Formats: sequence, structure tokens, C-alpha cells
Amino acid sequence: MKLSKFGEKFTASTGIVELMDDLGTALNENPDMIFMGGGNPGRIPEAETIFKQRLEAVLADPDQLHSLMGIYQSPQGDRQFRQQIASLLKKQFGWDLHAGNIAVSNGSQSAFFILYNMLAGDMPNGGQRSIHLPLAPEYIGYGDIGLTSDFFTATKPEIELLDDNQFKYHIDFSGLEVSEQSTAALCVSRPTNPTGNVLTDDEIEHLDEIACRADIPLIIDGAYGLPFPGILFNQARPHWNSNTILVLSLSKLGLPGVRTGIIVAREEIVQAYSNANTVVSLACGNLGPTIARELFRSGDILSLSRELVGPFYQQRATRAVKLFRAALGDVPYRIHRPEGAIFLWLWFDGLPITSQTLYERLKSRGVLVVPGHNFFPGMKSDWRHQQECIRVSYAQDDKIVEQGIKIIAQEVIKAYESGDN
Amino acid sequence: MKLSKFGEKFTASTGIVELMDDLGTALNENPDMIFMGGGNPGRIPEAETIFKQRLEAVLADPDQLHSLMGIYQSPQGDRQFRQQIASLLKKQFGWDLHAGNIAVSNGSQSAFFILYNMLAGDMPNGGQRSIHLPLAPEYIGYGDIGLTSDFFTATKPEIELLDDNQFKYHIDFSGLEVSEQSTAALCVSRPTNPTGNVLTDDEIEHLDEIACRADIPLIIDGAYGLPFPGILFNQARPHWNSNTILVLSLSKLGLPGVRTGIIVAREEIVQAYSNANTVVSLACGNLGPTIARELFRSGDILSLSRELVGPFYQQRATRAVKLFRAALGDVPYRIHRPEGAIFLWLWFDGLPITSQTLYERLKSRGVLVVPGHNFFPGMKSDWRHQQECIRVSYAQDDKIVEQGIKIIAQEVIKAYESGDN
Repeated sequence: MKLSKFGEKFTASTGIVELMDDLGTALNENPDMIFMGGGNPGRIPEAETIFKQRLEAVLADPDQLHSLMGIYQSPQGDRQFRQQIASLLKKQFGWDLHAGNIAVSNGSQSAFFILYNMLAGDMPNGGQRSIHLPLAPEYIGYGDIGLTSDFFTATKPEIELLDDNQFKYHIDFSGLEVSEQSTAALCVSRPTNPTGNVLTDDEIEHLDEIACRADIPLIIDGAYGLPFPGILFNQARPHWNSNTILVLSLSKLGLPGVRTGIIVAREEIVQAYSNANTVVSLACGNLGPTIARELFRSGDILSLSRELVGPFYQQRATRAVKLFRAALGDVPYRIHRPEGAIFLWLWFDGLPITSQTLYERLKSRGVLVVPGHNFFPGMKSDWRHQQECIRVSYAQDDKIVEQGIKIIAQEVIKAYESGDN
Repeated sequence: MKLSKFGEKFTASTGIVELMDDLGTALNENPDMIFMGGGNPGRIPEAETIFKQRLEAVLADPDQLHSLMGIYQSPQGDRQFRQQIASLLKKQFGWDLHAGNIAVSNGSQSAFFILYNMLAGDMPNGGQRSIHLPLAPEYIGYGDIGLTSDFFTATKPEIELLDDNQFKYHIDFSGLEVSEQSTAALCVSRPTNPTGNVLTDDEIEHLDEIACRADIPLIIDGAYGLPFPGILFNQARPHWNSNTILVLSLSKLGLPGVRTGIIVAREEIVQAYSNANTVVSLACGNLGPTIARELFRSGDILSLSRELVGPFYQQRATRAVKLFRAALGDVPYRIHRPEGAIFLWLWFDGLPITSQTLYERLKSRGVLVVPGHNFFPGMKSDWRHQQECIRVSYAQDDKIVEQGIKIIAQEVIKAYESGDN
């Protein structure tokens, strides 16, 4: 089979492919694996009940059922759904939004594929522009999404060492270089995937200023964040203005199977996105909007996030940190301060093996994590730190997480003790 | 907003964007429009009942409900679903298939975006390869899907004039040029979208030979065809071998809202596709596999197609032809012999206005059709025939179709009478 350039680049086995392969194996095919890898959400019974009731109501209403299955969604997405999102966000946060500022996508990965590539890569004038990630590490799924090479640039973080074997990344604004010529947009996930860092309101404001000054959009990946699913353990303000592209998702509420992403942006961006999405995907799936519509109308999506989803993961994060502390003992480990998302990010300073080797050893022992070096798109590979970290999900049930942490600690201790590399 | 080259190409308002905008307006927002445009399927109550019962069974089973909503699908797609598809096709047609030959996509448009671009466009050696369409006209949705320009080539058809104002396109094999250097694959939809033509078994065999000889895949877009949803009104044999990429869909069974496409191909192609799809989309929606799984296990998908879906559209096609005959009278119209799909393709020889103008006049009278010039990707625009055709869906209810046909006939007669252009 002869592959095009696109074919060679996109069919390669990349970090995100390995992650989703592992996820498929663990969650669908081999349930004995201890799954602490991909971003599958945990099970929150009260949330599941809400979604089930909503689906029952749809089944009981022939018109709604027909709309769910038998009709293509409009290119921008279900208008009622978009209206309800816009009016909720406007009422709650005062953002100047209407339905024309909202687009639906088949999950946020597919939204990022289109948004990133429509802004960056080869430019009509013969130049090249990149997506700049102000705070590495960043999300593994971005890594191979660009149609051209050198698609991302990234700024190396400042590292603040904290008590109790914790640490925190900060944006190094002194090293953050943006050029109108070669930078297409800034992008941050908030909370950061993989670290669970939550950029402060000040950091976001500062990024917003830089983006506005350079006349490029600030993209915020809110898959875990604000205002929903609200998996944040500290105070932070949701941010949007007409220079912001906010990408949200229903996945981490407990609905990854419906594949629904939501884009909040100024109208010209939404329109451009929707046209491209029609060419690439024709239309989006109806299940997500059908289930969630009512939650936006009532505003329940916000209370669900605040009262149920956020606290659920905060309790798990606290427990996972405690378990790692007990298991790792004197190992020179550090845990990124857990401020949100559903992962812990562990840094093993001076680890004698690479994160890839640690991942493979853990996999052979039945534990899936994600090796850290995949989370540095746009960074040169000469920084040893990239090989010293792993991302560990704590979304699964307590017993599984506990077993997994024990095995991770055993393998890390073994690696330090034998000193091999 | 500065757009990349990809951005400029993909965010433009193309034929498929206009078609889906019209569809959104007619089906979701302005139900007074007479909708004979996009490919939304008709309503078949017996089929809807089957899908509803299946969804009820899922709701009654906590494990199935969790799998529907709460878990990411594996990269190739739900394994059980793929196994059931493979074993049904193997049993029924003797094709040498297992689960590794099947991939799931978020609808077939998204499958074509990846498959086409992974085979054609800019090649690693600096050359360019195109997707060749052996029989123009072909599907509007292909038109703008290529990442590079000149992405398609097409062979002008032979036209056979038939009795009763009918005609039929045939592949002109004498004019079909394939070069190993510059052709990446052959692709046909069967039945053809837009014409309702069904390529004969001989034509398919001939294409298969040509493709095998040139060592390039033959892609068959079976969205309306074989073996399901089976919207064919004559006898034709399903075709697959290891050099064929068969792309199927659940949409025309009545499930466009679930966005499920199915790729049947040799393993290396399925694997390459799945990797690329993970980077572009992360995962596919679970609703389609969840609803259809049981229909594949039981084989009911084939009887549903043969006994319900096919006959439903055949009856509508016959009726639509009769209505057009009565309404058009002495106009020099021709209807492509309706052999399948859910459209009539009308050719108005010497029409004094373009198909775009006819489309606009019809839209202003509340009737949506699709102007024919959009269905000639890969063809030079100097063939007047491309401006003389329209595609008219007969999927909607009888009364609507009847009203629409009356108005179409009025506008066509008016155009011929005034002779303007």
C-alpha cells in the first residue's frame, strides 16, 4: 500500500494511538488490566441516573426519538442546544453570546484537528505558523494532529518545589516568545492535561493580553474544566472573550461514548469551523446534544459539575496522593500539586530508566499508565525531565487504584535500586 | 482571522456545505420548506420500531447503558460489533473476513476524508496522486475533501438514451486512464449518488481487474447499497476482495443521527485507517454499534434491507417518476433510470439557465433540490451537461414529494419558455 505524506504521518503509531489502544484493551477487551492510562471518566451513579432518565424521556417521545436517530444535525449543531448553551453562559458569566457563537463537534479531538489546522501550518503567503503551547507539558492528543511538521512550539516551564514532595509548573513569561509572523494561536488546557495544574486567573489574563496584542486567538481546552465538568479543586474564574476559543466537552461528565465537543468563539470562527467540519465529517452525532440539552436549559449542568463531579474527583485525588506517599516512601518522587483533572503527574528525579521503559514494565505487570515523554509537543527532546514523569489516572474504582499504585511503586523502587538504564 | 492553506480551502462555502445548510434549515428549523435536497432518509415505521426496541433493551441493562455512554470505543471500533459484521458477511458472501478487517468511523464522510487523503495527494517522493472516479457524475461530498488541489480525476460517461424519456450512464472503459504513477485508487458509489445508477456486476469486475493490475485499491462507497441498506431495484452482486475497500453506513437504514460508518478492507488498510482516525477523532460514537450490534448477530440487518428498506424506496421512486412524467409533459427532460438510492437525477437538455439558477429559483419558491454541477468532482467544467441536471430526493412523505415535483416542473417549463440565461 502506497501512502501519501498525510498517510505516512497520520497512520504512524503515535502516543495517542498507543494510549487509545491500551484503553480499548483495558476497558473493552481485557478487564483484568488495571487501567490508569487514558482519560476515561469514573462512574458517578447520580450522574448516570440523570443521563438515563433523560434518555428514557427521549424514548417516550416519538418526535425526540426521531430527532435523535433519523435526522442529520445542522452543520453548526442542533440550534436549540446551541441556544441553551449560549444563554446559560451569558446569564451565568455575562459573556456576550448567542447561538451563532456555539458550534458542536464530534468530540473535542476532532474540534482541535480542524481548529489547529485551519489556523496553523502552511500559510497562503508561503510562510509557516505554529500553535504555541505556553506551558509544557501539554496534552498528548495534540502531538500528531498537525498536517505539517514543526506544528507546535512550547515554552519550558518554571518549576516550583513545594512541601510534601509536591511541585508545580508555572508559565515562564520571560521565555514566552510570540511572533505575529510565525505564531498562529496560543493554547492551554485548563486544568492542564496531564498535570492537573490549574493556570491562575492572573496567568490567563496575561496570556489573553499577549494574544490580543499579537492579534492571534487564545485557545482554552476546557475538557476537564470551566464551567463544566468543573473538575477543579481550587478557585478559578472561567474565561471567555471574543479573542478566546473555548473548547468544551461532555466526556468528563461521564459521556465519552457520545462524542460531543462544544466550541465557544466569535461568529466568524464558528462559521469557518462549521464549514470545515461539514467537509470533514458531514454532521455531528445527535446523542450528546439530545441528552444534555435539558441540563443546559435548567442550568443543572453547572450544579452537577460543582456538587457531584468536582468533589468526586477531588476525593479520589486526595486518596491517590496519600496512597502514593505511603507506597513510595524514600524514593525521590514528586507529585504535581493536584488542582484538577483526573490524573496525578509523578516526577521521578534522576530515574535511571526512561518513562517509556517504566510504562512497558508496568504494562507487563498488568498496569496501564501513560509515559510522560508524550506530553511535550513542541519541546526539544534534550530535557531529561521529559523522561522522568508518568501520568496516572485515578478515575477507576478505589480498589483498582490502590492495587495499581502498589505495583507502580514497586517498579519505581526497583528501577532506582538496580540503577539500570 | 488569518487562515492557513488548509483553512482557506476547508472553510470555504462549498457544495456540500450549502447542501447541509439547506438540510439543517428544512429539517430542523423551517419545516415549511419542501425538502428534496440532502440525503436524509425517509421514515419507515417498522424500522423505527426495531431501533426503538433495541434502545429500550440497552436502557434496561446497566452494563450496556454504561458501555453506550461511559466508555471510549476502541480505536478500530467496538470489537463485538466488528466480529458480528465480519462473521455475517463471511457467512453470507464467503468473503474471507474477521474482526481485523472491519473498522468503525464517525459516519462515512469522515471515513472518506481519512481514506482518500491517506492514499492520494502529495506523495513522499514529491509526486502527486489522485483519486480516480471512473463514472462521473459522482457524490458531491467528495468534491472538497482532498487536502491538495487537483485531488480527483474522472472519466466522462457514455450516455445511453432509453425509452420513456429515460437515460443511463455507463463507464467509458475506452476513456478510462489509470496510471500507476499518478492514480492512488479508483472509487465508485454503488448505487451512484446522485444518479441512482447501479454499476453492473460486469462493470465492477472490470474495475476490479484494472485496479488489481495497477496495484491500487478499488473503493466502493456502499452507503445506499450492498449488502445493506440494500436500496437497489435490480439484481446486483455485493463485491469485496482484499484489494477492495468497501465503505458502508447505517445512515440510510434510518440512522443518520448516530454517525456510524463501517470500513471493510484488508488488515493493513484497516490498521492504518484506525491509527489516523485516532489522531483525527480520538474515538467513534457508541450509539450506532450499540443499536445495530444485535441486527448483525441475528442477520436481521439483511432482511430489514431486502424486505423493508429497498421496497420502501422503490415504491417511492416509481411514484416520483410517474409524477414527473405527468408534470413535465413535452419538456425535453430525461430521468436517469432509477436503479437505486433515494434520488431521481433529471437532465434538462438545452436548459436555458444553469442548474444553480434553477436551484435558487426553486429555493425561493420553498423547494430544496441539489444543483447538478456539484456532482462532477474531477471533471473539467466545459461540458454543458453538468449545468443541465438536478438531484431530487423522493425520501420525504408522498404529499410533500408531490407538491415539490409540481413546483419543479413549473419552474423548468418557465425557464424553457422564457429562454433566458
